[in-house]
Amino acid sequence: MNLWSTLERAARLHPRNVAVVEDGRSTDYARLRARCAAFARVLRAHGVRPGERVSILAWNGQAFLEAYYAAAGAGAVLNPLNVRLVARELREILADCGARLLIADSGFAELLREVVAAPTAVEHVLWIGAEGSTGAPERGASLERSIAAELERGAGAWTPDTVAGDALAHLYYTSGTTGRAKGVMLTHRNVSVHALATLFELGLGERDTWAHVAPMFHLADAWATFAITWAGGRHVVLPRFEPVAALELMERERVTITNLIPTMLNLMVRHPSARGRDYRSLRLVLSGGAPIAPQVVREILDVFGCDYVQTYGMTETSPYLTLSLLKDHLRALPAEEQLAYKCKTGRPFAAVELQVVDAEGREIPGDERTVGEIRVRGETVTPGYWNRPEETAAAFRDGWLMTGDLAVIDGEGYVTIVDRKKDMILTGGENVYSTEVEHVLYEHPAILEAAVFARPDALWGERVCAAVVLRLGTNANAEELAAFCRARLAGYKVPREIDFLASLPRTGSGKILKRALREPVAG
Amino acid sequence: MNLWSTLERAARLHPRNVAVVEDGRSTDYARLRARCAAFARVLRAHGVRPGERVSILAWNGQAFLEAYYAAAGAGAVLNPLNVRLVARELREILADCGARLLIADSGFAELLREVVAAPTAVEHVLWIGAEGSTGAPERGASLERSIAAELERGAGAWTPDTVAGDALAHLYYTSGTTGRAKGVMLTHRNVSVHALATLFELGLGERDTWAHVAPMFHLADAWATFAITWAGGRHVVLPRFEPVAALELMERERVTITNLIPTMLNLMVRHPSARGRDYRSLRLVLSGGAPIAPQVVREILDVFGCDYVQTYGMTETSPYLTLSLLKDHLRALPAEEQLAYKCKTGRPFAAVELQVVDAEGREIPGDERTVGEIRVRGETVTPGYWNRPEETAAAFRDGWLMTGDLAVIDGEGYVTIVDRKKDMILTGGENVYSTEVEHVLYEHPAILEAAVFARPDALWGERVCAAVVLRLGTNANAEELAAFCRARLAGYKVPREIDFLASLPRTGSGKILKRALREPVAG
Repeated sequence: MNLWSTLERAARLHPRNVAVVEDGRSTDYARLRARCAAFARVLRAHGVRPGERVSILAWNGQAFLEAYYAAAGAGAVLNPLNVRLVARELREILADCGARLLIADSGFAELLREVVAAPTAVEHVLWIGAEGSTGAPERGASLERSIAAELERGAGAWTPDTVAGDALAHLYYTSGTTGRAKGVMLTHRNVSVHALATLFELGLGERDTWAHVAPMFHLADAWATFAITWAGGRHVVLPRFEPVAALELMERERVTITNLIPTMLNLMVRHPSARGRDYRSLRLVLSGGAPIAPQVVREILDVFGCDYVQTYGMTETSPYLTLSLLKDHLRALPAEEQLAYKCKTGRPFAAVELQVVDAEGREIPGDERTVGEIRVRGETVTPGYWNRPEETAAAFRDGWLMTGDLAVIDGEGYVTIVDRKKDMILTGGENVYSTEVEHVLYEHPAILEAAVFARPDALWGERVCAAVVLRLGTNANAEELAAFCRARLAGYKVPREIDFLASLPRTGSGKILKRALREPVAG
Repeated sequence: MNLWSTLERAARLHPRNVAVVEDGRSTDYARLRARCAAFARVLRAHGVRPGERVSILAWNGQAFLEAYYAAAGAGAVLNPLNVRLVARELREILADCGARLLIADSGFAELLREVVAAPTAVEHVLWIGAEGSTGAPERGASLERSIAAELERGAGAWTPDTVAGDALAHLYYTSGTTGRAKGVMLTHRNVSVHALATLFELGLGERDTWAHVAPMFHLADAWATFAITWAGGRHVVLPRFEPVAALELMERERVTITNLIPTMLNLMVRHPSARGRDYRSLRLVLSGGAPIAPQVVREILDVFGCDYVQTYGMTETSPYLTLSLLKDHLRALPAEEQLAYKCKTGRPFAAVELQVVDAEGREIPGDERTVGEIRVRGETVTPGYWNRPEETAAAFRDGWLMTGDLAVIDGEGYVTIVDRKKDMILTGGENVYSTEVEHVLYEHPAILEAAVFARPDALWGERVCAAVVLRLGTNANAEELAAFCRARLAGYKVPREIDFLASLPRTGSGKILKRALREPVAG
């Protein structure tokens, strides 16, 4: 099926349901379909053909939602760009995917002029927002005026391009924590089966309001574009993350469900204005895109008073691979034991088969001690990387996608990731999994954020190091933090060096960039 | 994905949940997987190769459930046979699909001896039930002893055959209401996407108990094999339909959900022992496989005190196409208005795109008066008929499967089927839709069952005729029933002939066989 059909369904069954709220303006599903159809005709008018890539560089907004649907309707492949990328990175991706049309927030005009200073395939730019406020680097037009002109021309019937389930829908470039960016191809089937499985797993319905707070160019949020629409639910958008604005949105728009990045959640629940608001409509907070510390989960449950589910996924898998939803008999456990399960990485998402295997591909025992690598397969798994047959082949083994994530598995079938394969620290012959040490650091009252990583060591091979950000108005030194860890961890796991930073370096999607921490800070 | 993975998931996440109850014996998911793996090895040992057809002729039972999974695990295509077929029909199907292995209830030994009197490809029979009670027509073995031998050999690890999503999983021969039986091919993807969509639409979970009361060889029930297992729910089986046994099963096993055929429901709710039982666990009764009269729905709601959903589907679509689930705002309507929506054929099932179109393929208005033909497409639609490229091509137009069902559509997007295209009666230039007349007849207190059909008429082309079955202890003659109709219908819709029968002729799946009614009864 074409992903367009999820919007078609909402427009037919729920034409008067509010589809999206932006800046207090509501658009219903009948109107949203008309706008997306007009947008798709704009793409066609620019000569975009089925299978062709269209890139988008934008903050969260209704236009992003519409771009996802217009591209699907036109049979084009949408390539969402990370807003934190610099000109050189953007140019590389645009060259790699060969997009001739770019949709961009006009605030990026300056940056884009730099991007297209060197030749790319980009011929046209459709500008979101204040049109004409900047000179377009290439031939440009206002997206809003283009859509309005098409709507005026009389919408009429719109027949989306017919694409098979295995036609490409999206091209997401991985965020660059590992070398050169690769385009992850996702098909209409990948994304639609994922959306259908979330509808089931999370019990989504018309009554749901989803907050697009995490970036819409990132799959931790983007999957909900299709799932929430499919259910006839309501989208609300926050253009750029800021903790207070996010908290206000949750309260004001009576958000029922959202998926946030742990660092966002951390900043939100620890913000002085977090408490005392009315979050009664909020039924579920999902956290994904990076590991989370149990202490932060405790605070989430406490501040929001709603349910919490840990998610784990990858761009390559549309993205969910596990959810920490509780099985029926676990819901009868005391609250603290339930919390322990909720903090695990989770049990397999309904749409995937998941195994944890040793180096020979044999499944490891569910003893919660033996560590193996997670591998997965299913209808939500990418067919591979754009124009990278060798990297595609290297990602799969015996038909399974190797995730590169190391995990243990418990007797109930819940996995817990202990580290990225490449982030695991090998010190004096012992494996140290960085998340275990980070979880201990997060328990210290002075610590706002922490990251644990390896630095080369002449004697031990690698040594355990940490970077921390302290809470405002608190104080702690390295000796004190090391002593705190020593009381809770085996000696070889205790950080030998602790750097105190004002903030941790991050990728555009909010993941901590451990690679950038390895160089010791001056002084 | 291979459908086997739904069982694998249940066995990993819910090993101790009861998977199936038969004759009071419970089997948990760990055990069910071990048995199905052993069964799959039995198939392999008989030389069954991926893609090969395996036929099954059996009443409902755990063995049928196991056969679905064993075939999937071995990569074979299961061909469920209708138990009402006669030797000649069975021979035709076995010849058409070329099965070398047949799984059969030993009670069918006599019939099968007749079947294989003429040559078929069948080489082996695996007998379900009392082994040795009958002479096997071909080389035979006891299924249970074969499974037991494999289990004894030590289950070990079992790796199901790897099949792609578009590999065939099932071959269902259409029930024969229209000429020569054709094998409908369903892929692993067809069936798994359908199951996933039912998990969402019906909110299935671990806590659900499904009653296999409708035949397991028919998709009205068979889809639940995979959906309920996927959720880790419980299956209970009734070998052969009998109203009191079905009512007892619902009560005793605390069934939460099931899909019954209207004729079954009719016989159940109108049975004197239906009332006074405890159906509190029952949350939802689905009805499918044939149209149902509103009066029967009223009685279902009254007797069972649970929710009711009308379903419509075809073998070619795995099967659901619509469900009469209420949209949120319709749940606020008064009970009688809600009932009116529940009695409609329903709004599109989550996994399909559905349109009602005129002869030129244009969508008809949602005015609830204009009649068009339903067409559908989506991941749950068959790739076609086994070895019948011409009939496959004829079934599709512009990529849509033409259902042959005539329907109106309302302003809320709910369709109501008015007739099969070929059952529509054309009398004196007027279209008469048989279901409309049948619904009126069902309102008459003396009528247990009714069917309306056409007979050729020299003057009018066709004339409206009816066949009815009266309730025990009631009385009514043709004049009285015609007068009852005349007070409620336009004159040209009133049956000209009414036959009184002891029972209506049916297909094996419980649909009324209108073709057989067209010949006037003697006397």
